[in-house]
Amino acid sequence: MKKVAIVGTGLLGGSFALALRDFFSGISITAVNSTTQTTERAIELGIADKGSNLKEACREAELIVLAAPVTVILQILPEVLDYITASAVVVDFGSTKYAMCKRVAYHPKRGRYVALHPMAGTENSGPDAAFKELLIGKKLIICEQEKSDFDALDTVRYLFGARFSMDIYYIQPDKHDVYLAYASHLSHLTSFALANTALRKQYYEPDILKFAATGFRDTARLAKSPASMWAPIFEQNKEAILEALQEYIDELNFIKEKIQNNDQREIYHYIEKANRIAPIIDRLTPK
Amino acid sequence: MKKVAIVGTGLLGGSFALALRDFFSGISITAVNSTTQTTERAIELGIADKGSNLKEACREAELIVLAAPVTVILQILPEVLDYITASAVVVDFGSTKYAMCKRVAYHPKRGRYVALHPMAGTENSGPDAAFKELLIGKKLIICEQEKSDFDALDTVRYLFGARFSMDIYYIQPDKHDVYLAYASHLSHLTSFALANTALRKQYYEPDILKFAATGFRDTARLAKSPASMWAPIFEQNKEAILEALQEYIDELNFIKEKIQNNDQREIYHYIEKANRIAPIIDRLTPK
Repeated sequence: MKKVAIVGTGLLGGSFALALRDFFSGISITAVNSTTQTTERAIELGIADKGSNLKEACREAELIVLAAPVTVILQILPEVLDYITASAVVVDFGSTKYAMCKRVAYHPKRGRYVALHPMAGTENSGPDAAFKELLIGKKLIICEQEKSDFDALDTVRYLFGARFSMDIYYIQPDKHDVYLAYASHLSHLTSFALANTALRKQYYEPDILKFAATGFRDTARLAKSPASMWAPIFEQNKEAILEALQEYIDELNFIKEKIQNNDQREIYHYIEKANRIAPIIDRLTPK
Repeated sequence: MKKVAIVGTGLLGGSFALALRDFFSGISITAVNSTTQTTERAIELGIADKGSNLKEACREAELIVLAAPVTVILQILPEVLDYITASAVVVDFGSTKYAMCKRVAYHPKRGRYVALHPMAGTENSGPDAAFKELLIGKKLIICEQEKSDFDALDTVRYLFGARFSMDIYYIQPDKHDVYLAYASHLSHLTSFALANTALRKQYYEPDILKFAATGFRDTARLAKSPASMWAPIFEQNKEAILEALQEYIDELNFIKEKIQNNDQREIYHYIEKANRIAPIIDRLTPK
């Protein structure tokens, strides 16, 4: 595998490129972006060798990585499969999987596509946020692996599993989207809302965030995430996200009522229930 | 200053003790705790030299530090001022300040008390969580400094400002409590509710948190915080917390409606508004 095309050389696409160059020599990487500025920056940073348009890039590449916002992936995926050669492999890094898989379920080249979701990211975005360690050792979800050709799946397993040391999990797309709504998408909503609550209060109390510390930082950090990435995710995973969000609002209304009623016993109990998250947090915390 | 009493040798009280020993030699530290187990562990960890009861400890010490849950501080504060010698200094580390200051406003020894809030903490608790660097270089809020005697205030400024390199801010207690509701207390509520949402879903989908990553970790990390500390804070800062919580719930209902209506333009706009939190997050993030 010598020729790779990356559609969207931002945080994930860029980090993939840097890792790829670290493990293999002589790889030629073509960037496809919506702005020439991003492509130029990707070339400056050593992420890509050149820029091209989608059609040209897909015709030439042996591996095509779609790392654009999920609406863009959903839109171009059938087209990409139309363009590629018979032996090329297409993967995407989108944070939603049900809509993608459904979209190309009956495409004649469905077998060349492997639906991926690497569980890695930061609140930063763009080529400058990319770093070669981002994917290494993380979890990788493969959806509908039974619809991918053996050789395409093997390429993915070799590259991400054997070389990037990623833990591979096989999950069906609908399950994936529900899991992610609770384990990731909801966390982003809680951060966006927390940031907007604090920023609105700041109009009246300009010093309100002067004493924000690590607690605020961590609960609001994801609010830095780009709208171009997240607005489409909220659209594509709408059903599961609305369910998770409503359950979260119900939790908040519950504890609000207990605080209103000075119900110390129930507040205690509520916090102790939440404390059971500790092993999950600890497992995710570097020692 | 040779004799110090610490009421509550947990994360904050214990870290204070360790820093104190690091900067001064020949200090004798007496621990006052609700369980002898905590005192024994504090002695083992080098936090305290001995244990005692509140009355004895206050009579002997030149500096008394109240680092217990805020309900305990509120309850014992007048008593502590009754017990101390005429030249002793009392400080507290409580996360609420209005109720404390009001409680001893007319106490004959009010001048010996300096109301503090060191802006430092982690989600861990107990003497084992203490470490000597916790307070160093952080922010320290002093409330109603005009009601403290000059020499008591100078002791605090010297110890926390000059030695521990803490940045000192003077804020009135009611303002402090509103600021903290938004900058800290609300973040804890968002984490407790997020943890409980995920844990409840886990009954039905046992693998739901298998793919939790750093985003979930950070937004739910504070849910490890102890009920013994936080239930009393929610009681004492009830009014400001309920206001902040309601505004947060309103924000969530707003974005929920936009997601329901597929209003991509408004969702975009909402996320972009939240992105303005970036400079505050970046300022709090170690380089």
